[in-house]
Amino acid sequence: MEEDKFIELAQRAKAASKKIATLPVGVKNTALLNIAKNLKDNKDKIFEANQRDLEEAKPLAEAGELSQSTYNRLKLDENKMRDMVQGIIDISNLEDPVGKTLLKRQLDDGLILTKVSCPIGVLGIIFEARPDVISQISALAIKSSNAVILKGGKESINTNKEIMRVIQEALDNTMNFPKDVLTQVFTREDVANMLSQDKYIDLIIPRGGNNLVKFIKANTKIPVLGHADGICHIFADESADLEKAKRIIIDAKTQYPSACNSVETVLIHKDFKYSSELLEALKDAGIELVDKPESWHKEYSDKILSYKFVSSLEEAIEHINTYSSGHTESIITEDEKNAKIFMNAVDSAGVYHNVSTRFADGFRYGFGAEVGISTNKTHARGPVGLDGLTIYKYNLEGNGDIVKDYVEGVKHFHHKNLGG
Amino acid sequence: MEEDKFIELAQRAKAASKKIATLPVGVKNTALLNIAKNLKDNKDKIFEANQRDLEEAKPLAEAGELSQSTYNRLKLDENKMRDMVQGIIDISNLEDPVGKTLLKRQLDDGLILTKVSCPIGVLGIIFEARPDVISQISALAIKSSNAVILKGGKESINTNKEIMRVIQEALDNTMNFPKDVLTQVFTREDVANMLSQDKYIDLIIPRGGNNLVKFIKANTKIPVLGHADGICHIFADESADLEKAKRIIIDAKTQYPSACNSVETVLIHKDFKYSSELLEALKDAGIELVDKPESWHKEYSDKILSYKFVSSLEEAIEHINTYSSGHTESIITEDEKNAKIFMNAVDSAGVYHNVSTRFADGFRYGFGAEVGISTNKTHARGPVGLDGLTIYKYNLEGNGDIVKDYVEGVKHFHHKNLGG
Repeated sequence: MEEDKFIELAQRAKAASKKIATLPVGVKNTALLNIAKNLKDNKDKIFEANQRDLEEAKPLAEAGELSQSTYNRLKLDENKMRDMVQGIIDISNLEDPVGKTLLKRQLDDGLILTKVSCPIGVLGIIFEARPDVISQISALAIKSSNAVILKGGKESINTNKEIMRVIQEALDNTMNFPKDVLTQVFTREDVANMLSQDKYIDLIIPRGGNNLVKFIKANTKIPVLGHADGICHIFADESADLEKAKRIIIDAKTQYPSACNSVETVLIHKDFKYSSELLEALKDAGIELVDKPESWHKEYSDKILSYKFVSSLEEAIEHINTYSSGHTESIITEDEKNAKIFMNAVDSAGVYHNVSTRFADGFRYGFGAEVGISTNKTHARGPVGLDGLTIYKYNLEGNGDIVKDYVEGVKHFHHKNLGG
Repeated sequence: MEEDKFIELAQRAKAASKKIATLPVGVKNTALLNIAKNLKDNKDKIFEANQRDLEEAKPLAEAGELSQSTYNRLKLDENKMRDMVQGIIDISNLEDPVGKTLLKRQLDDGLILTKVSCPIGVLGIIFEARPDVISQISALAIKSSNAVILKGGKESINTNKEIMRVIQEALDNTMNFPKDVLTQVFTREDVANMLSQDKYIDLIIPRGGNNLVKFIKANTKIPVLGHADGICHIFADESADLEKAKRIIIDAKTQYPSACNSVETVLIHKDFKYSSELLEALKDAGIELVDKPESWHKEYSDKILSYKFVSSLEEAIEHINTYSSGHTESIITEDEKNAKIFMNAVDSAGVYHNVSTRFADGFRYGFGAEVGISTNKTHARGPVGLDGLTIYKYNLEGNGDIVKDYVEGVKHFHHKNLGG
């Protein structure tokens, strides 16, 4: 749409964000349950829309213009639909992330400071062809009292439109719910509009491949929450248990090779006695091994693994802090001291000991729902749950208190933390 | 300096940031106390350097090319020096913000997730002519285990160089301290270099006027923590106590008019019976009153105040959410319900009831030290203490645990929070 039309849309989203910010949690949860029910009731219409997308995508997939994995992600089936509906119900059962007292402090008699969690405002979500994302993100936005402008992949446009229609219908039937909380846009032009509206949009969350995320980060002044690369490492030191090393590396590479938390490079201490057994076992598991310096920043998203021998724990840490994308790394060691040094010194969102990197996930961490995984160094890092969609404000209550009294020494702060 | 030289410097800062990340708090505190002592021991040399800056600035100030307030901020005296030294000692006494356990959760038997606070990495600090900032920021960076690249205002270049020399000398005498944690750069070219090095610099903190902050936000992909404008509001509703209203507004406008937390616009409910008495009292306090729509986004930084009559609490909230810079707003009311609605609905970093906006300050909030005040909607908002210079990582410890077992239903997460 034209830029001025988009600005109007963004302004309406901003206004709706102020309304949902003060909405009682009961209304939010009712809206979520209404959405879940309406999705269930309308699943045949959604499958029909999805069928149209699949038919349009099929020739592209056959001609190789659309990858098979994108085509597969596009398809909604009964299982995915059930998960979508259940996901929304689960989010309705989570604790309200808004209005939590994070700090309560008496600055002086009768002067009470409270730090309270609150929504961020307007989120811009840009995602590729996975139509189940739309209901998940909508539910997370509602629960965290944020407005959201969604731009989905063009391959799933029919499904996205139908899902959004069903969601909006449910919201229309939810008393007192500000409808402009959710809006959908469709064109590349709208992506450009979104990225330029830092006055109205407070946070951009891209969910998709490396190129999408890099493009977005390079083209907006709005904070971006997400990750471009997932170059995860596993280091087996000289005391590593061979069986654990095999189990963990095979899981981290083969359980779901295209996941961002899959391992891409294994570092092995040169004094590890079973390195040849380990490498043989990896090959037997169908993993192709690569030992070349130019592979250190490769994300294969496939059963291919870079490996390198290192002379020390320090060299392993140095390698990881140089080549990692800051996502997740693991050390395999029976030496607690080495584990501790590694976990302190490696600068990534997840730093593990004797476990697979594949655990880096909001559901596995027990967050109930996940916005995505962030490799940012500010705001939110690692798997991001509802908390990552909130910020806080400071409320201060008094009775005519003025700063002059404190500057002139008439009064003095005593800063006493209160329970809560 | 040339871009490639700057990149080398930034790489050294990054390497130093990894070293200080694991430094015991004792070494950090020793470094801080050594700095405090060395500043005290070298104060005459610092005053001499400051004298050179003042002499160079004087003709500019007389010619009106440098504002009187900038000239005043440039001057270091015994009081400011004592505050500088004491500020560093205070920071050494604060709790270590790094290594705090923020969450400890058993995902399953023997699979323990810990969320631990850690430093951000490399900070880029750009500040205008206030030479006391350099020691304060250096101390905050050290305490929070971040490296920092500092660019000060050209007016205080001699003072800045001398203070940094004294700080570096103290660090040289601190065993095991990575010296590249603190670096200083001097030219406009270096500002441009800093803003473009998103690979090595993780957070930019500008401390200075509106134009500086706006320029920086517009010219970098690195997250920026700070505020450009400080357009704060006070709303007196129909139940406001006249004496409190006078006290609070006069304090908020006149106690330090150029502060960012000074009030710029007062909204008065049309049914407030004492509005003429209130406006008279403000005039008597030397405040010039302005009642024009074009003044709603004015930051006067002077004893000038916009005012407007509104018909309702909702109109006041709407006005504030439209024109505020998101810094700090206050309601004056004897009606607890109105206070509650206002504090929930106004979307600013600080939302107060019956107190002056001038309380928005890290020291007054009891944070011990302040990086600055943020109007961001992500990461850190309001007065930012040491916590705002940290992020967190997730550590996960197990014993050969793999995701396949959970996907295949061999094992199940039980997500039990542990104390800590």
